[in-house]
Amino acid sequence: MADIKAMIGELSRFDAKGMYNNDFLLTWEKSDDEIAAVFKVADIFRKMRESNISPKVFDSGLGISLFRDQSTRTRFSYASACNMLGLVMQDFDEGKSQISHGETVRETANMISFMADVIGIRDDMYIGKGNTYMRDVSKFVQAGYEEGVLEQRPTLVNLQCDIDHPTQSMADMLHIIHHFGGVENLRGKKIAMTWAYSPSYGKPLSVPQGVIGLMSRFGMEVALAHPEGYDLMGETEEVARKNAAATGGSFIKSHSMEEAFKNADIVYPKSWAPFAAMEKRTDLYGNGDTDGIKALEKELLTQNAQHKGWECTEDAMKLTKDGKALYMHCLPADISGVSCKEGEVAASVFDRYRVPLYKEAGFKPYIIAAMMFMSKFANAEKTLHDILAKDGRRVL
Amino acid sequence: MADIKAMIGELSRFDAKGMYNNDFLLTWEKSDDEIAAVFKVADIFRKMRESNISPKVFDSGLGISLFRDQSTRTRFSYASACNMLGLVMQDFDEGKSQISHGETVRETANMISFMADVIGIRDDMYIGKGNTYMRDVSKFVQAGYEEGVLEQRPTLVNLQCDIDHPTQSMADMLHIIHHFGGVENLRGKKIAMTWAYSPSYGKPLSVPQGVIGLMSRFGMEVALAHPEGYDLMGETEEVARKNAAATGGSFIKSHSMEEAFKNADIVYPKSWAPFAAMEKRTDLYGNGDTDGIKALEKELLTQNAQHKGWECTEDAMKLTKDGKALYMHCLPADISGVSCKEGEVAASVFDRYRVPLYKEAGFKPYIIAAMMFMSKFANAEKTLHDILAKDGRRVL
Amino acid sequence: MADIKAMIGELSRFDAKGMYNNDFLLTWEKSDDEIAAVFKVADIFRKMRESNISPKVFDSGLGISLFRDQSTRTRFSYASACNMLGLVMQDFDEGKSQISHGETVRETANMISFMADVIGIRDDMYIGKGNTYMRDVSKFVQAGYEEGVLEQRPTLVNLQCDIDHPTQSMADMLHIIHHFGGVENLRGKKIAMTWAYSPSYGKPLSVPQGVIGLMSRFGMEVALAHPEGYDLMGETEEVARKNAAATGGSFIKSHSMEEAFKNADIVYPKSWAPFAAMEKRTDLYGNGDTDGIKALEKELLTQNAQHKGWECTEDAMKLTKDGKALYMHCLPADISGVSCKEGEVAASVFDRYRVPLYKEAGFKPYIIAAMMFMSKFANAEKTLHDILAKDGRRVL
Repeated sequence: MADIKAMIGELSRFDAKGMYNNDFLLTWEKSDDEIAAVFKVADIFRKMRESNISPKVFDSGLGISLFRDQSTRTRFSYASACNMLGLVMQDFDEGKSQISHGETVRETANMISFMADVIGIRDDMYIGKGNTYMRDVSKFVQAGYEEGVLEQRPTLVNLQCDIDHPTQSMADMLHIIHHFGGVENLRGKKIAMTWAYSPSYGKPLSVPQGVIGLMSRFGMEVALAHPEGYDLMGETEEVARKNAAATGGSFIKSHSMEEAFKNADIVYPKSWAPFAAMEKRTDLYGNGDTDGIKALEKELLTQNAQHKGWECTEDAMKLTKDGKALYMHCLPADISGVSCKEGEVAASVFDRYRVPLYKEAGFKPYIIAAMMFMSKFANAEKTLHDILAKDGRRVL
Repeated sequence: MADIKAMIGELSRFDAKGMYNNDFLLTWEKSDDEIAAVFKVADIFRKMRESNISPKVFDSGLGISLFRDQSTRTRFSYASACNMLGLVMQDFDEGKSQISHGETVRETANMISFMADVIGIRDDMYIGKGNTYMRDVSKFVQAGYEEGVLEQRPTLVNLQCDIDHPTQSMADMLHIIHHFGGVENLRGKKIAMTWAYSPSYGKPLSVPQGVIGLMSRFGMEVALAHPEGYDLMGETEEVARKNAAATGGSFIKSHSMEEAFKNADIVYPKSWAPFAAMEKRTDLYGNGDTDGIKALEKELLTQNAQHKGWECTEDAMKLTKDGKALYMHCLPADISGVSCKEGEVAASVFDRYRVPLYKEAGFKPYIIAAMMFMSKFANAEKTLHDILAKDGRRVL
Repeated sequence: MADIKAMIGELSRFDAKGMYNNDFLLTWEKSDDEIAAVFKVADIFRKMRESNISPKVFDSGLGISLFRDQSTRTRFSYASACNMLGLVMQDFDEGKSQISHGETVRETANMISFMADVIGIRDDMYIGKGNTYMRDVSKFVQAGYEEGVLEQRPTLVNLQCDIDHPTQSMADMLHIIHHFGGVENLRGKKIAMTWAYSPSYGKPLSVPQGVIGLMSRFGMEVALAHPEGYDLMGETEEVARKNAAATGGSFIKSHSMEEAFKNADIVYPKSWAPFAAMEKRTDLYGNGDTDGIKALEKELLTQNAQHKGWECTEDAMKLTKDGKALYMHCLPADISGVSCKEGEVAASVFDRYRVPLYKEAGFKPYIIAAMMFMSKFANAEKTLHDILAKDGRRVL
C-alpha cells in the first residue's frame, strides 16, 4: 500500500492535464510528461492488481470496440482494461449494424456513444484511411458532446491504425524500461528496428513506425534497417529524427540487418510491407480492382522472397551487445520451422526469449487502462487515492 | 437531488402496477398511466446519470438479446440500458446455438432464461411472425416460471416487431414532450406521419404503425399520408382511430404529403413497404420461392420509383406551421445526395435537424431502461428512493 | 440464512483442497469428496440466489469462453455462472483472432489469459483431440503462471470434450440427487444409459461416457445398452467398471434397450455415434478427405436407420420401475413427430417429463459456478461465509 502511494506521489511530477477528455491516437502528439504519466499509471494499476486492489472507477458505462481487422492480443487487452476499470466492452460489429443503409460516420459515431466512455478502434488495413477515420470519429463525438447530444465525451484509443500502434509501442517501451531497470538507464542504448522476412505479405507498417516514433524519445540510438524499397511512411521517420535530435539520441537508417544488430542492446526484427506498395494497394481496393490486387500480391511475395536472409538467426544475435540483446516482437512472429518454413526468427532464438516476449505482451492491458484513465479523470492522483480509500478487493 | 426526489414523487400519480412481471410488446396494450410512468422513469434515469448517480439495481443477472435483423441504435440502446441497470447483455446468436437440432421455441425460451431478468427481441422481417414469436416466448417463460423451472420470470421488451416498434415510438414521443415543454402542451398539435420515397424497398411498417398507435393518445391531430397502395396494417389504423376518439384528437388519412404537412407542428416522413406486398413476401419466403421474391422486389422498386415526389424538401417544410415543424426520423434516413441519389429527405433539411434527430435517438436507452425497470420492480417509487439512498456514483 | 449457514457447515466434511488452482476436466479425476463438495456448493449458490444474496466474489476479471462447436445450454450456463460470480465472459472467437497467422496453442493460451480467472472450453468434435487440447492449454497457462507471465493461474472448465461432459453429468447427477431426496437414497437404484435412434449422425459420445463414468460412483446399478457396433471409448467403460466395484454398485452392458429399461429407476436414452466411426472421421478430417467424410456419413445414417426400434416409447417406459422411471436427457432431444419423423423419444413421454427435463438443465449454471469457485478459493467455507457477511443483494 505504501509503495503504491509513493508511486501515485511520483505522478505529481508530470503535467498530463492535456490528456483529459482527449484521445490517444499517436504517441508523438503526446508530451514527454504525458507519456511518462501513462507508464506510471500502468505500473500503478499492475501493482494494484497484484495487491488484489480493484481499480474499478466506473460503476457502469460502455467501452466500444470497433475492430476492422483481426486481433487476439489487443482485443483481449482492451477487454481486460475495460473490465478492470468497470466498463463493459460492447463490440460494434459493422456487419450486424445498419451502416450499409447509408449511415454516415458522423451518425454512427454519435449513435453508439450515448453511454460510451471510451471507443477503441483498430483500422490498420489501408494507408491513409485508418487514422483519418479515427479523427473523423473523434471530431464527430466532440461535436456531439458540444451540441448536447452526448452527455459525456467518449475518448478514443487507437488500437492500431495505418500510422501508429501506440498501445503496442507503449507496452513495448514499458517492457524495455522494466528490463533495463528504469528509463534513466536507456540513454545511449541501441535499439535495432529491422525488417525481417515473412512468407506472408502486406503486414502493417504501424508497428515499426510506432517503435521508431516512440523509442527515439529516450536518448537511445535507434537503428532502422530494411531492404531497399521497404521504406516506412516518411513523416514517421521525420518524427524519429526530430525526437532523437531533441533528446541527444540518434536515428540511423541502413539497408543492413547486420549493421543494425551490431552492438545493439535491443533488437526488434519484424516483417512489413513497403509503404509505396501499401499506398498502391489502397488505391486498388478503392477501385475494386481485384486483378490488380492479385498481381500486386504476387509481386510483393516475389520481392519478399529475395530477402530471406533478413532472419533473426543465432548468428545475427551474436552481433548484438555481448550476444545478449533483448529480442522483441509484437507477436505473433513467423518462426522458421514452427509457424512457417522460413520466417522472421530462428526457433531457438524465439524460444530463448519466449518468456520475456509474453511479458512484453502482458503490459498492454495496463497501458490501455492507463490511457483510458488519463483521458477520463481530470485529477489522476486524486482519483487513484480515492481508489485506495475505497478499498475494494478484486477477489473476495 | 431534490429535483430527482420531486420527479419520483410525481410517479405516485400513475397506476402502473400492471407492468410488474409483464412484457412491453405493444404500446396500445399499456394504459395511459403506464405510458406516463415509463416517460417519468426515463427522465429520472437520465437525470440520475447526469448527476453521476448510478441506478444499478442488479448486482448480477442477464439481459438476453435476440436480434433477427440488423440494428445499430436499438442494439446499443438495449446494451446501454442493461448495463446501466446492472445486467450483462448476453447475445443469443441463433447461428451458434443448437436450435437447428430441432429445439423448440418453448425449450430455447427456457434454456436461455435460467438467470435472465429481461429478454429483448427484434423480429421485424416477416408480417404475422415477429409479434407472434415474442408472444410464444413470453408464454413459455411464464409457464416455465409457474412450473418452477425458472426462478424469476424474464420480462420481454419488443425491440421491433412486424406490428410495433415501441422503444422507437416511446423515445420519439419523449422527444416531442421535451421539445414542446410537456405533454400538456400537445393538445391540438398536428403530427404528419407520411410515407417518403426511398431507393430501397421492404422497409418495416412497424415505425409508422407504432407512431400512429402512440401519438394518437395525446389529443393531437395525427395525419397519415401515403401513396395509394402503401397501406399500413389495418388493425393499427383502428388503434389510432380509437385513441384519437378517446382523447379528443383526430386521425386523418390522405394520399397527399402536402395535405399532411400543411400547418403540421411535427413531420415524420419515412419510407415503408405496402402491407399487402409484405404479406406476400412472407408467403414467398415461407415457400422458399426465390424467383418470386426477386420478381416482387423488382415490382416494388418500380412502384416506389413512381413516387419520388414524396420527399421532405425545403418546399415541403415551408407548408408546415411557420415553416418550422419539428422534423423527425428513426434513422438512418435516406438523404438525397448524401446516402442516395434521391431519397426521403433533402440534405439541407436533414442537416438543419441533425442535432434534434440525434437527441431523439438519445432517449432510447432511457426508455428501454424504464420499460425494464417497471417490469422488474413492484414498487417503482420505493426502489428509486432506494437507489438514491444507496448513493452509488457512476464514475468515481 | 440459517439454512445456508448449515449447508456451508456441511462442506467441512469434504476434503476438496486438491481442487484449488486446478482444472475440472474429467469427473473421474476428482475424489468423491471433491464431487460432493461441488454438489454442495452448487446447492448453496442456488439457495443464495433464491434468497436474493449475490455470491459475487470477483469485482473484475474475465471468464474466457472458447467454443469449437455449437451450444445453447452450456454457453448460457457458463455465461450465467461467470456473471453470478462477477466475471465478465469474453468469447475467444478463433475466426476473429490471429491464430491463423501461425500462433501456437502455447502463445494463444497465454495471450488470452493475462486477466483471465477461468477458461471454459468446448471441443467435442474430434476423437482424441478435444481433451488433449484442453490439457495443452492447461499445461501452458500453468507454465505461464510459474514463469511469471500470468499473475493468476486461470483454471479450466471442460464444457464438453471427446471423452467427458462433466458439467452435463454433474448437473444430471444433482438432478437425480434432488429427485430421490439425497445421495444416500441412490444405493441399489438402477439407471439405464441407452442408445436411441436419431436421424442425424455423429452425435458426441461424451454424454453417455460422462454418465457411466459418474453415475457408477454412487452404488447404483448402471446398465449401458446400445446396438452392436455402437461402443463407447473403452477407457470410459473401464472407469465405470472400477467405480461400480468400489462402491458396491454394478456396471452391466447389453445390446437390448428392453433389458436395460427393465425395472430401471432412471432412463437416459440418447443417440451417439460409434466410437470407431468417430475415430475414422477424425482421420478423414485430418486428411481433408471430403469424399471419405460424405461416404462415412451415408454409411452411418444407413447403420442408424437399422435401429429405429431404439426409441423411448410409452411401451418402453412401462418396463421401468412401476412404469415411472425418471426420464433424462441432455437436450435437445430428437422427439418423434415433433423435431423429426422418428427419433429418440415419443412425444408423449417427452412431454410428460418436460418440466423435470428443464429443471435438470437448470442445475448446470450452478454446477459450473461451483466448479469455478472451488478452483479459485483455497478455503471455500470461509469465502462462502464472507459472502454472507458482505450481505450483497442480487436485486436491490
